[in-house]
Amino acid sequence: MKKIHVPVAQAYDVLIERGILAKAGETVRALTKAETCAVITDDHVGPLYADAVEASLREAGLRAVRFTFPHGEASKNAATLAAIWSFLCTEGLTRSDCLIALGGGVVGDITGFAAATFLRGMPYVQIPTSLLAQVDSSVGGKTAIDLPEGKNLVGAFKQPAAVLCDPDTLRTLPRTFLTDGMGEVIKYGMIADAALFDTLCGLDLDTVQDRFDDIIPACVGIKRDVVAEDELDTGLRMILNFGHTLGHAIEAYYHYETYTHGCAVAAGMCLMTDYTGDADTAARLRACVERYGLPSRVDAPIGELVPLCGHDKKRAGSHLRYIVCEPVGHAVIRDATLEGFAALFERTV
Amino acid sequence: MKKIHVPVAQAYDVLIERGILAKAGETVRALTKAETCAVITDDHVGPLYADAVEASLREAGLRAVRFTFPHGEASKNAATLAAIWSFLCTEGLTRSDCLIALGGGVVGDITGFAAATFLRGMPYVQIPTSLLAQVDSSVGGKTAIDLPEGKNLVGAFKQPAAVLCDPDTLRTLPRTFLTDGMGEVIKYGMIADAALFDTLCGLDLDTVQDRFDDIIPACVGIKRDVVAEDELDTGLRMILNFGHTLGHAIEAYYHYETYTHGCAVAAGMCLMTDYTGDADTAARLRACVERYGLPSRVDAPIGELVPLCGHDKKRAGSHLRYIVCEPVGHAVIRDATLEGFAALFERTV
Repeated sequence: MKKIHVPVAQAYDVLIERGILAKAGETVRALTKAETCAVITDDHVGPLYADAVEASLREAGLRAVRFTFPHGEASKNAATLAAIWSFLCTEGLTRSDCLIALGGGVVGDITGFAAATFLRGMPYVQIPTSLLAQVDSSVGGKTAIDLPEGKNLVGAFKQPAAVLCDPDTLRTLPRTFLTDGMGEVIKYGMIADAALFDTLCGLDLDTVQDRFDDIIPACVGIKRDVVAEDELDTGLRMILNFGHTLGHAIEAYYHYETYTHGCAVAAGMCLMTDYTGDADTAARLRACVERYGLPSRVDAPIGELVPLCGHDKKRAGSHLRYIVCEPVGHAVIRDATLEGFAALFERTV
Repeated sequence: MKKIHVPVAQAYDVLIERGILAKAGETVRALTKAETCAVITDDHVGPLYADAVEASLREAGLRAVRFTFPHGEASKNAATLAAIWSFLCTEGLTRSDCLIALGGGVVGDITGFAAATFLRGMPYVQIPTSLLAQVDSSVGGKTAIDLPEGKNLVGAFKQPAAVLCDPDTLRTLPRTFLTDGMGEVIKYGMIADAALFDTLCGLDLDTVQDRFDDIIPACVGIKRDVVAEDELDTGLRMILNFGHTLGHAIEAYYHYETYTHGCAVAAGMCLMTDYTGDADTAARLRACVERYGLPSRVDAPIGELVPLCGHDKKRAGSHLRYIVCEPVGHAVIRDATLEGFAALFERTV
């Protein structure tokens, strides 16, 4: 087992091991005073793994109940959240009980927000089952739901009691989800680990599977280092947003229907580097992204994407911060007025 | 001006002064980097005071926008919260902007929760305009909404940037709201200040008005002392719940329609003392409560109220904690099983 300690105020460990799903019960027992665990999952992941998780909980002497909602980003809204709150009431959970987020980023984000807010806060354990969730959304304590006006506009900072990553779950992951997660994996290489980036340039969607035992801890370790230094997202943590300013604009432009988060981030990283980096870095990034079936461009005109960046949460007043990576493995945070940011994209590349 | 410093992790001051409403602008300027302030209020309080608050904000160079919702506990729900979130999106508020909660406890609770969750947290200033909100809900960082299943079942701990209490607003308060607030004021005497309790025993709803300049700081000071010692509500803070375990049951029994919060707490304090205290203390408390038009009994049979106490958030697993005050001015936290708690109420008093 690989253990990555996340030393934020409410410290916790990310545990990475094949088969660790079956240790959910002993983890909850060791870390909480729960009598009941509510497993929150979706209709894709629940049928695959919830029985195993619940068996482990019961074996540890815990009562297990399950709430399943339809998979996909469209469920990450106030209505699903209200349904989870209501379920927790009905099942009589107290603030010393525990939630288990079993699924990808959507399940993790909304379950974490439910745990942050039900009875003003209760423990939860993350069991991320997608690559994206394992390397990204399970670390950092960010929880959220979407509003009709945009993604992740409402949420809270809430650290899990523990994160259990089982790389075996990635073997059953549909190929499009694997592609999606690789967008964030490549991002970690770009912002902080040139060697990881080089490794990724030599692999593809098939060969990468056997390397996850090392790649996932590498990504989680980078995120841990950044989050530990900036728990409340006021400075350094911005570098994790490389590709996201334009990525969020791409997702919004296509109404969250055409591009997954990882695909939008990949195209966002490439576009940002095309316009702000040197030609060699831009070409290497584009080649790497394309190896994994990720888009390096989108049809949307850049002139229509840029104004959408103004809606980003990271914006402070009339200013906006964005990230560039040059050389590979080194991220820089830049600050611009909305006009100055738009001007970056006025030349032809 | 009286200033009470609340030394929690995110420390802030409660400022008490007649006319302080008009200092909202300078307070926000001094404490935040806001460019825009959203004043959240209800249709009772907004027409009385929002213009003055917004004028003060504009005078300080801030943009002011207003969101008004129907007054009353029925508005403190997920639908109003979603409408506030949407309003903040539409008005383009960023996480460095500021919310102003202008109103009673309902406005304060839901605005605080909106501030805790919109963009994962932004500053807010409380301007409580009811007695209950000034002495109770504006201090302690508890924010919440109700669910169909019960009151305050969802929320967050979120400290305001400042609390501005203007005792002048209590002069326009309908008499029933004044009565409501006196329930909590008497509670402070019972749990921590025998002299305050004695003072209250010599006043009534008319004569108390001129004493608020001292009574409000006394109550806020007690709450501050307790909250500072137990910010996350894991121990001592329980004493603030004197009367609330049965009070919440009374509110729920009558579907939140018959008794206001303060009335339910008053009856809850009296019932608890009837069954667990000596006859003299019980009689003094009953007499004091009745001076302010508060109920010392309810028609609901005690045997039907007690099982409703099991739904209280303060319950940990199959146990429940409750508060008794004896002598006046001294609160004790007791722990019981649900059965043991029920047994307290089986005798006739």
